[in-house]
Amino acid sequence: MTRLLIGNDFNEDLFTRIAASWSVQRLAWFAQDGDLLILPVRPEEDFLSYVTSLTGTRRSAIEVVVPAAGRAGEDLLTADRLADPAFLTALRRALAGRPVTEVLALWPDSSVATLARALGAEHALPGLGFAAQGGGALANSKAVFRALAAGCGVPIPAGAVCTTPERAASAITELLDADAPVVVKQDYSLGGKGNEILSRIPGIQPIGARRALTLTGTSGVGDYLDERWAELSRNGRDPVVVERYYPGSTSLFAEYLITDNGVEFGGTGEMIMAPLAKAQVVPAQGLKPDTAAELVEHGRRLCVPLHAMGYRGRLSADAILSHDGELFFTEYNGRVTMSTHTYAVVGARLAGLEHTDDRVVVERIWPDGWSARSFASAVAALSEAGLAYDPSTRTGVVFSSALDLRDHSIMQCVIAEDMRRAAAYEPRLEELFGPGGTASRTDPTGKENAACS
Amino acid sequence: MTRLLIGNDFNEDLFTRIAASWSVQRLAWFAQDGDLLILPVRPEEDFLSYVTSLTGTRRSAIEVVVPAAGRAGEDLLTADRLADPAFLTALRRALAGRPVTEVLALWPDSSVATLARALGAEHALPGLGFAAQGGGALANSKAVFRALAAGCGVPIPAGAVCTTPERAASAITELLDADAPVVVKQDYSLGGKGNEILSRIPGIQPIGARRALTLTGTSGVGDYLDERWAELSRNGRDPVVVERYYPGSTSLFAEYLITDNGVEFGGTGEMIMAPLAKAQVVPAQGLKPDTAAELVEHGRRLCVPLHAMGYRGRLSADAILSHDGELFFTEYNGRVTMSTHTYAVVGARLAGLEHTDDRVVVERIWPDGWSARSFASAVAALSEAGLAYDPSTRTGVVFSSALDLRDHSIMQCVIAEDMRRAAAYEPRLEELFGPGGTASRTDPTGKENAACS
Repeated sequence: MTRLLIGNDFNEDLFTRIAASWSVQRLAWFAQDGDLLILPVRPEEDFLSYVTSLTGTRRSAIEVVVPAAGRAGEDLLTADRLADPAFLTALRRALAGRPVTEVLALWPDSSVATLARALGAEHALPGLGFAAQGGGALANSKAVFRALAAGCGVPIPAGAVCTTPERAASAITELLDADAPVVVKQDYSLGGKGNEILSRIPGIQPIGARRALTLTGTSGVGDYLDERWAELSRNGRDPVVVERYYPGSTSLFAEYLITDNGVEFGGTGEMIMAPLAKAQVVPAQGLKPDTAAELVEHGRRLCVPLHAMGYRGRLSADAILSHDGELFFTEYNGRVTMSTHTYAVVGARLAGLEHTDDRVVVERIWPDGWSARSFASAVAALSEAGLAYDPSTRTGVVFSSALDLRDHSIMQCVIAEDMRRAAAYEPRLEELFGPGGTASRTDPTGKENAACS
Repeated sequence: MTRLLIGNDFNEDLFTRIAASWSVQRLAWFAQDGDLLILPVRPEEDFLSYVTSLTGTRRSAIEVVVPAAGRAGEDLLTADRLADPAFLTALRRALAGRPVTEVLALWPDSSVATLARALGAEHALPGLGFAAQGGGALANSKAVFRALAAGCGVPIPAGAVCTTPERAASAITELLDADAPVVVKQDYSLGGKGNEILSRIPGIQPIGARRALTLTGTSGVGDYLDERWAELSRNGRDPVVVERYYPGSTSLFAEYLITDNGVEFGGTGEMIMAPLAKAQVVPAQGLKPDTAAELVEHGRRLCVPLHAMGYRGRLSADAILSHDGELFFTEYNGRVTMSTHTYAVVGARLAGLEHTDDRVVVERIWPDGWSARSFASAVAALSEAGLAYDPSTRTGVVFSSALDLRDHSIMQCVIAEDMRRAAAYEPRLEELFGPGGTASRTDPTGKENAACS
């Protein structure tokens, strides 16, 4: 078994990620003995050793290959880097004649299909044809999502897919006139950062969006679109989604693996939004049994057209549960998401959720100023404090990301029996990694810690 | 049974049709007793009487409703016209309380879903959700087609879906370097008019394209894209398709009806291209049995993802049969095409192809200067010459379109036992409707005929 794991990210033509080199290192959680990991930058050895020791993969049995920096630098695994002849030579050398048994990429880009072909490994990449012909964009477009969801009977908020500002004005006005707030979404943005909320009434908190605007009168909508249409539509390249917004709703997801054989359920979770995603809980907690079943069944239904279209890989179906208990789906993500390793590795294997449901995983996504001096010192501090994950109890804290070298932040998963016990870790972790924490980048006086690299 | 038949055309945001008001009158072929036909302009009464007399529909049992001209004039049934309150009032008056049992539109536009909702007839429009959320674009995009075809194992020519000129340059160069000519396609153009052929060798006939260009050296591709990218991509709005081009191939299609129950085969045909479509033959003639079966089976396979996505309606799968006998699919069209009435009404019912295969229908699509003084005079001339369709023999000539008032052209279907006998009609029709023909707009001296309106 020789698999190629590719730490690429959202297609640079669709959306520009900044410094993705840090976040795509989560690829290490999927590594098994024999794998070649292709990453935009070389991960810290401390991070690789830590992750493999937890997953039981032998560090010596995996290899990391990093192509030379590309036209856009070294943060993203762009098409030019994956097609670089020197990289292909290095890859063939690392393979040493072993056939590639599977190609697994975080994002279904056509450059991954090109790479598989260059290696004679077409059959090792499920969904090659779809990815090769630009299908990845279809499996990650909020506009395509709405057509497919409406087409297969999955509930979505009232709204429209708008290819012109006139259509958007009419859709926004119709919702505002019905006294509903509106969320306006860029087709390909991530984590709510391309979303804006519009309302006739002030005071709406922009949860899952970057801001909330109060519009009054009809000219308000026109003025808003005059100012914002070019950016929302990327100068007319993408449609813009207009949807009814439900204040006070809960953000949920259900994730699946789509294979040649069909659709496998992966896991559920909740995104804690305040205002943008700052934590996730796996599996989703406290849902009524009917709601939980509806989340999983509708999510599965959404996978059916993607399976028929030829997409293969992970699909996250995102939904909101309104204050009134109504479930609406709001987007899908046909890629390995920031939740996949959380439920499929940390959750399923470390917390034991593949066999039982007696654990919950709570992951801080945006660390809010929490930091560590180095990855190794963070691991040591956690052990000394007695907070590290313990396989015998299936509880404790796991660092789920590499250290982000820009601000020394690091993502942490608390595995506990329930939400109450998970919350009990919070103050103890804050003492270590919070602003001024003893293991943080800054000491209690706010001065940068001497050991900081 | 009260059906609404809607003579709309390709979404104006995707592609601008000129004077579609003439071509969408083919809607009349689908009319049944009780139907309301919504058309951009009022058809000639002579045309309506002619078509209904052939289909056995009572002219008095159908009604035509024409909304007031819209922002774009009267040639297209644009969204503003279908939502016009005065039109809705007229429609409700025409319905006189009868419930709408089915809504059938030529093009699955969101404005049709809006109309169905305004009439409380949501359940009468199959695929409403998909159409309402912009799905029509997905079912008619050459880029989406390539991802889905590759994704479900339908053979397509080598090539790529290109969202940047750099990607297009690399895809074009790769094909040219392999000594293959290339066709470059706009995402939403019709009838080959958005296609251009590129080759390193001069002398390629641009069949199915508007022109062929000879490019030499590598800078040739860059210069071509510098000049053409903005138009090909509509200023970056759409991806551009780059495909291997097969000179001397035959253009085929297989059409289907996608319903809630599944996929029904409709008919096959051949488009005669010289250089753009100028005639169609229904059903496709002279195919080897294996090729004929492959055409229908692959076409059906292509319908499966569209069914799962929620599209309901006609789907034409277009293919080319190369000189070497290879079949490749090149696009799909999720709408009532310019072939649907030809096989589904003229072919199936008048030629009897729904029961037997002993007839062929040959339709002149672009009349090449053929014309008629008026619709009524053309029908009379045909009868006098003894060429008119005779139901007792299931042979003869049928006018399949309204008279195009811009140039007095008119489409003609010859129904005959075989291609040889169909061809025998040609000189006799030319005497009547060809340039200077006795029933044509111009008399033999080339002067405009006195009876011309």
